[in-house]
Amino acid sequence: MEEELRALLRDLDALKQRPDPAAIDRMRERVAGMVTPVAVAAGAAARSKIKDMSAEVVDSNPYSRLMALQRMGIVDNYERIRDYSVAIVGIGGVGSVAAEMLTRCGIGRLLLYDYDTVGMTKTDAAVQTLSGINPDVALESYSLNITTVKGFETFLGSLKARSSDGHNTGVDLVLSCVDNYEARMVVNQACNELGQTWMESGVSEDAVSGHIQLLVPGETACFACAPPLVVASGVDERTLKREGVCAASLPTTMGVVAGLLVQNALKYLLKFGQVSPYLGYNSLKDYFPTMEMKPNPQCSNPACVQRQKEYMQLKPARDAAAKAKMEAEASAADECPVHLDNDWNIRQVIPHDCIVVDDSDTATPSILSTGTDSLPEGLVRELPNADSYQEPVAPVTSGAIDDDDLEELQRQLDALNSS
Amino acid sequence: MEEELRALLRDLDALKQRPDPAAIDRMRERVAGMVTPVAVAAGAAARSKIKDMSAEVVDSNPYSRLMALQRMGIVDNYERIRDYSVAIVGIGGVGSVAAEMLTRCGIGRLLLYDYDTVGMTKTDAAVQTLSGINPDVALESYSLNITTVKGFETFLGSLKARSSDGHNTGVDLVLSCVDNYEARMVVNQACNELGQTWMESGVSEDAVSGHIQLLVPGETACFACAPPLVVASGVDERTLKREGVCAASLPTTMGVVAGLLVQNALKYLLKFGQVSPYLGYNSLKDYFPTMEMKPNPQCSNPACVQRQKEYMQLKPARDAAAKAKMEAEASAADECPVHLDNDWNIRQVIPHDCIVVDDSDTATPSILSTGTDSLPEGLVRELPNADSYQEPVAPVTSGAIDDDDLEELQRQLDALNSS
Repeated sequence: MEEELRALLRDLDALKQRPDPAAIDRMRERVAGMVTPVAVAAGAAARSKIKDMSAEVVDSNPYSRLMALQRMGIVDNYERIRDYSVAIVGIGGVGSVAAEMLTRCGIGRLLLYDYDTVGMTKTDAAVQTLSGINPDVALESYSLNITTVKGFETFLGSLKARSSDGHNTGVDLVLSCVDNYEARMVVNQACNELGQTWMESGVSEDAVSGHIQLLVPGETACFACAPPLVVASGVDERTLKREGVCAASLPTTMGVVAGLLVQNALKYLLKFGQVSPYLGYNSLKDYFPTMEMKPNPQCSNPACVQRQKEYMQLKPARDAAAKAKMEAEASAADECPVHLDNDWNIRQVIPHDCIVVDDSDTATPSILSTGTDSLPEGLVRELPNADSYQEPVAPVTSGAIDDDDLEELQRQLDALNSS
Repeated sequence: MEEELRALLRDLDALKQRPDPAAIDRMRERVAGMVTPVAVAAGAAARSKIKDMSAEVVDSNPYSRLMALQRMGIVDNYERIRDYSVAIVGIGGVGSVAAEMLTRCGIGRLLLYDYDTVGMTKTDAAVQTLSGINPDVALESYSLNITTVKGFETFLGSLKARSSDGHNTGVDLVLSCVDNYEARMVVNQACNELGQTWMESGVSEDAVSGHIQLLVPGETACFACAPPLVVASGVDERTLKREGVCAASLPTTMGVVAGLLVQNALKYLLKFGQVSPYLGYNSLKDYFPTMEMKPNPQCSNPACVQRQKEYMQLKPARDAAAKAKMEAEASAADECPVHLDNDWNIRQVIPHDCIVVDDSDTATPSILSTGTDSLPEGLVRELPNADSYQEPVAPVTSGAIDDDDLEELQRQLDALNSS
């Protein structure tokens, strides 16, 4: 098309020298020929908005295969995804893929943060691409550096703000897809201040391993109170970007980590399956370690300590609600067995609430409690603890599995994985 | 741009009625304004080809982050990826993402097979998109149905054919990304006939689980000799497309399965890490079961049985080569310890050869040998065995871990995963 436009310029120049009705006709024909491809390209990129998500199986319905999740009993109400707002901090290898996945899933609102440029700002470029993929998603572009004072203020404000159409207040989940320690600590600070649940992700410098982690202020370890640099050994895990080092990158690792991250975001928002508290990915061995981390009562982050106090204060209310719910479910199960005769042989999904860590001392299923030096085998601290780091008061319990069992289990797992 | 072109048409019509040099100037200005965005868009889509992969860290080098894998000791020679040809059968949810990942990784040659259309043929559409992403990849589009006689012949011929530039003969790996049983059996037939290593992938109908599997004719179970419908229970695994049923689909599950598939393809081609013989993905619990399957000597597929015979005949030669290699490595290790002092604390990667299943009876690390009715706990057959299916002659051994241990291990694993 560039060539055609340049030819048009030459013709216009000639026309100015010498009026020629036949030349005008030829130009008219060429311009008309350019209109159709442009219109087609624009039409292919941008479908019109769709008011309601339908399960109808027709080519014009981009949501039929997502709504099928509901028919198959995986998700109770898929369309609720339109009510949710998700913030993605860092639109790089993991963040851009995560944004595309959420856009294709039809998320209600997506807030994108990055300070980098690719010609135009990264966030504007992402909004342009994503709006072409799914115009139903409300996209917000924030080109700013959250580690600056001004950037942090805007970041914090945007996480609380009401959406332009007034439907959403605040965000439902923050996904951290940044590539450095400082930015993670800033996301941690913002989420601790707001009591905002978030998920952290990272890919190692050598691009062959990564992880995702769920952080619920007051309930799980925050990024400051956990030793964030505890890594599963044998899993070559590095979450820190080193200054002046060009990290490796693999589209495969980025895709897997983004997929695991957004899958867990969907489970969290739409309340199906179990949200992983921590999930590692060692691509060399296809090994996926999991663990849970409790908050550190001596955490150096005051907002975290405050959230922990609030969480403990609400324990009696939570226990009562859980008991009432369990009783209601038990009596409902007596009356009406769920999915007993469905065609799909689909198991009843585990309620989302199961992931909440029980904070009673006797029944803690946690494998790893932070702030103890007796880490399970296979976990080492990558860096020394911070000066402010102290032994926590909370006792460490590990439910049915004690440390020796776990070591033995780890050995057997290793044997299996290396066979 | 469509609007601007239409305005231009109106101006040309007016100009024909009444010559006006000022109008020509205004048109000229508008056309000039359209040239730049078009040129920028075209330039962004298509970079020029790059002769050699360089590790130099500059914006103009798209390979610096891939070549960093070499500098970090993960891959011996990343640039060898340009020597490899990969065939992808099925350009749907998994296949299209896998094709994009391999294209971004700079694979030498990519052969794409699908019979479906999206306006134009799916394979042509894919070639158009992928050539814009990376013009260095040689792309071949095969719009055909491999389950027809004619389609199968073309498929088989293309897998053996020399590439147009004469650099490649045949393909190095086939990735099956189809969504039905019949097409998988056809890929299996072709690969058994050619002795071609391939990887199979699948996503369940409910879109929340999937798997990948390595198939080496004669060495591992083929798709016909293994009960292909053995599924890990508790892993809601469905690999068959049912007629008339609209399967669910999730971009996240597709992305994870494609990522795991291409990651294992890279490990296989570039000889790093361990290639997984089978890897499942249960997204509801983030559980990733693994297993190995030995070939069935009574397999109903004659080409498979022939490949098994050849594999056994070459056993003495393989044993001798393995012994020689081990001795050479042992003496080399004495002289020069590898990676002992590297900055990255990167472990020496496990040689690719480790994944080859030892076919001696005493040291088999296999968890699951096919063709026995005593499946480990957690595995059930989804459909009855085929009539042709018989008990194999090969004895079932399970190395250091016997079935009871495995059951106990599985229970502990389940407890861990559900905690």
